[in-house]
Amino acid sequence: MNKKQKVLIIGGVAGGASTAARLRRLNEQAEIILFERGEHISFANCGLPYYIGGEIKNRSSLLVQTPQRFRNRFNIDVRNYHEVIEIHQEDKMITVRNLQTDEVYQESYDQLVLSMGAEPIKPKIAGLDSKKIFTLRNIPDTLKMKTYIEQKKPAHAVVIGGGFIGLEMVENLHKAGVQVALIEAGNQVLAPLDYDMACEVHAHLRSKGIKLYLGNALQAIHEAENHVVVDLKNGVIKTDMVIMAIGVRPESDIARKAGIELNERGAIVVNGKMQTSIPDIFAIGDAIEVIDFVTKQPTFVPLAGPANKQGRIVADVICGFDRSYQGTQGSSILKVFDLTVATTGINEKTAKRLQLNYEKSFTHSENHARYYPNAMDMSLKTIYEKSTGKILGVQIVGYGGVDKRCDIFATAIRAQMTAYDLTRLELCYAPPFGSAKDAVNVAGFVIENILTDKMHIFHWHDIADLQKRKDVTLLDVRTIEEYNNGNISGFINIPLDELRESLPLLDSSKPVYVACAIGLRGYLAARILMQHGFEVYNLSGGYRLYQFIDEEKIKI
Amino acid sequence: MNKKQKVLIIGGVAGGASTAARLRRLNEQAEIILFERGEHISFANCGLPYYIGGEIKNRSSLLVQTPQRFRNRFNIDVRNYHEVIEIHQEDKMITVRNLQTDEVYQESYDQLVLSMGAEPIKPKIAGLDSKKIFTLRNIPDTLKMKTYIEQKKPAHAVVIGGGFIGLEMVENLHKAGVQVALIEAGNQVLAPLDYDMACEVHAHLRSKGIKLYLGNALQAIHEAENHVVVDLKNGVIKTDMVIMAIGVRPESDIARKAGIELNERGAIVVNGKMQTSIPDIFAIGDAIEVIDFVTKQPTFVPLAGPANKQGRIVADVICGFDRSYQGTQGSSILKVFDLTVATTGINEKTAKRLQLNYEKSFTHSENHARYYPNAMDMSLKTIYEKSTGKILGVQIVGYGGVDKRCDIFATAIRAQMTAYDLTRLELCYAPPFGSAKDAVNVAGFVIENILTDKMHIFHWHDIADLQKRKDVTLLDVRTIEEYNNGNISGFINIPLDELRESLPLLDSSKPVYVACAIGLRGYLAARILMQHGFEVYNLSGGYRLYQFIDEEKIKI
Repeated sequence: MNKKQKVLIIGGVAGGASTAARLRRLNEQAEIILFERGEHISFANCGLPYYIGGEIKNRSSLLVQTPQRFRNRFNIDVRNYHEVIEIHQEDKMITVRNLQTDEVYQESYDQLVLSMGAEPIKPKIAGLDSKKIFTLRNIPDTLKMKTYIEQKKPAHAVVIGGGFIGLEMVENLHKAGVQVALIEAGNQVLAPLDYDMACEVHAHLRSKGIKLYLGNALQAIHEAENHVVVDLKNGVIKTDMVIMAIGVRPESDIARKAGIELNERGAIVVNGKMQTSIPDIFAIGDAIEVIDFVTKQPTFVPLAGPANKQGRIVADVICGFDRSYQGTQGSSILKVFDLTVATTGINEKTAKRLQLNYEKSFTHSENHARYYPNAMDMSLKTIYEKSTGKILGVQIVGYGGVDKRCDIFATAIRAQMTAYDLTRLELCYAPPFGSAKDAVNVAGFVIENILTDKMHIFHWHDIADLQKRKDVTLLDVRTIEEYNNGNISGFINIPLDELRESLPLLDSSKPVYVACAIGLRGYLAARILMQHGFEVYNLSGGYRLYQFIDEEKIKI
Repeated sequence: MNKKQKVLIIGGVAGGASTAARLRRLNEQAEIILFERGEHISFANCGLPYYIGGEIKNRSSLLVQTPQRFRNRFNIDVRNYHEVIEIHQEDKMITVRNLQTDEVYQESYDQLVLSMGAEPIKPKIAGLDSKKIFTLRNIPDTLKMKTYIEQKKPAHAVVIGGGFIGLEMVENLHKAGVQVALIEAGNQVLAPLDYDMACEVHAHLRSKGIKLYLGNALQAIHEAENHVVVDLKNGVIKTDMVIMAIGVRPESDIARKAGIELNERGAIVVNGKMQTSIPDIFAIGDAIEVIDFVTKQPTFVPLAGPANKQGRIVADVICGFDRSYQGTQGSSILKVFDLTVATTGINEKTAKRLQLNYEKSFTHSENHARYYPNAMDMSLKTIYEKSTGKILGVQIVGYGGVDKRCDIFATAIRAQMTAYDLTRLELCYAPPFGSAKDAVNVAGFVIENILTDKMHIFHWHDIADLQKRKDVTLLDVRTIEEYNNGNISGFINIPLDELRESLPLLDSSKPVYVACAIGLRGYLAARILMQHGFEVYNLSGGYRLYQFIDEEKIKI
């Protein structure tokens, strides 16, 4: 770009601050002005819930970068408490209001970068003006909630919405000593997960004493003298505070008014160079529509990682480098009490909606060598393309090491790897860190076995139908003790190690549906039976997966 | 293969047991005999040091699979305490000795799989027959050492060899309450690391009270009445026990006698199908030569992960599937007290030896968001191809999250990714697990900046020469406080945030060599200076890396 060019950036935090810093590194002469409505241009927005819960003790550590430090280091004209209220695209000007003086003025630009982010959705229901209702987007919101908890000592809170922020608030309110109920309109928390993987999260939340109201929508909120009444579709809850966390929507009003193209959800449409429909206006971060890296379809994924990358790319593009953003795959992770939940790529809901030719495989692996202390199990659901074995997505729920496996998958998906490639990954192994056959290798091995017809599988959702059929054998190959501790109705028990000698007991004219604890012994049984002429299917994920889903049916 | 074919496997543990199990899954009819000289066919060989240190408390957890359980489950004829003493390749027979009865007999095969592993190297020095000298390969070795420690309560031990097993023994002996000295003939521990990355490990070992003798070879060992005397090239140590861990060599004697091709190090030469030079004889695991995935050169990498994968592949090949092994990249990891050390791909020593057109970049990143408790720094050394940016290897030393980053790199290297690809990796981010710009992204960003001439770098080993030159400016851009706490001789201090106003102080005709703490502020300074016409180089890895190497010089 022209060395003396003037770039305006609307909005700080992840995207805007990254853009400004990279611009300055690339062009020492450019005039760069960063407008931010609030006080803070760069704060730990993903850390806010942890300050409320007390995990992050020091308020000052929430401030990543102060306007003053940012000015000194990057020679950027930082204007916090300045709200951009209009874009005049024909004149390449914006109108700004100084929120401290109320002065309104105009500023011209050569390039304009929109990085306004997304704001919490407020449902259209009665009672939302109560002082006991909170949302969480920035530091003032955080302090308001923290002060309320410290001063009013609420005994009970209702969190509305089981997404990332909702669950982080559930955990952190619980840590702050507050009893928590979670209301979720859908039948599961964490929409990026499929229902079958969310069930283990539900069980964990309940084990911590969180009261779950799934499939139950908020209708209204009434403030009473000493409490708040939350009206649900089914039932009423009395509480001391309400956190609204039903999701976010792109903050794109000034873009809309300027005639910039938005999608039907209000997200700003950009191309790979982060250019909007209007020349010299760029947009990044939570306010934009992105292309899903896996499906190549437009989508909306408000995450800090992509926003940072887009900030770097838009600065490069403005400075004349040939760079483009190559899509978002939705890699995300969440600590839910002792559990870690992570996902990357697409889930089964998306694969189904887009009618992809996919299959799924459930596996369970330990985070490191079983014989080393504190080995813990994790559950993986891997979605892959049936024809090629290409990995489309994974969901992982477990304790230690979930983040590692999800990031390995994230890298594999970027590289368009197949399940065959996963079998060949050479990951670091020592007892404290992994296993010689890592969870990711195992996911690959199992899918390879399915793809090469060494094993056929069936799923938990096939069981209800199978239980009604007389022309199949339902066989549980776990030990007698495991079987007696809980089993799937209709399944007979022959422990794996007795299977060879028990073959004469089985009717070889009937297909055999095998179940075990996690799918491994079922596979071994399937191999024995297949080689004796049986038609065999193995329950993917085994009784361990089935159990969580089955218990959930009872709970709801 | 012929359904009734007869496969003999020599050696259990990682490779042999994997082969046997996979063979059975693929062929229920085959006759499979597994010969193992010792008692155990499958034990936690990587866990043995941790049993000695007490981290693994239960002796039984060292047994992964007993011969009896293996027989029951896989219908495999397990012959432990049986040593194979000769291969008669013309007749497709082997000679076996039953070590419990001394009976010698012959067994025919259709296919033979060699999985004998590697054995500890014993140097040719005097005194090695002492009962106070130990090696560690199997459970009997472990029990011998554990019993000695419990009964004799040695106050002091000498570990010879600073490789993986040597360092694991150092840590576990220390945990068992023994004072430890480590002798290493080379100038560094952990040969897969380069010297510059090993220096931080040396500092950590010393901080734990381990006495390091680097560049000091063992000459002889004498047993005295109450102690052992270890004679070194420089000096003598009195100790209570000695652990020999100078490395392993392929156990390939019976292969050599049978005329099977070995390389000059005695490793069995195989092709991608794990076939040796003799038809129907296969070899896998620590006894074989493998192809380095990165360099495509033959090498010797005794690791459990590759052995397991090779076991699966050889079974597939024997059963007629078209599969091949695609090389080993040497992914390995080690816990060294509080540190984690991990590496994958090649190091600089290898790149240099093969005269590759490479460059290296040192970066430092936190394992997760700084504002979340317990954020810890890790050091990365990334080796890449200069012309393309292709990642050739990485070494990482740090605390939490080192295993994750190394496995992401391992996956990226398998996918032949470049530094540009690393910048685009979308990894999971939440404050407890990572940063919006992950350590791996940062490594990519920095290399991208180097490759696209946004930054030129210099290295710690260039400093000695620079200090002698009068025609350069050596500039430290850290704060005055940091500078006063320790700096590199010859470097003047101008803090980054004062650089713009201080430009007139600098002679623009001289190249400027910039240093900061980790390389980030140096980069920002370089960008400012370059755009003002200076020729600038930034110290890769900064003072943090330099400091460890410099202190090492003083210590040795």
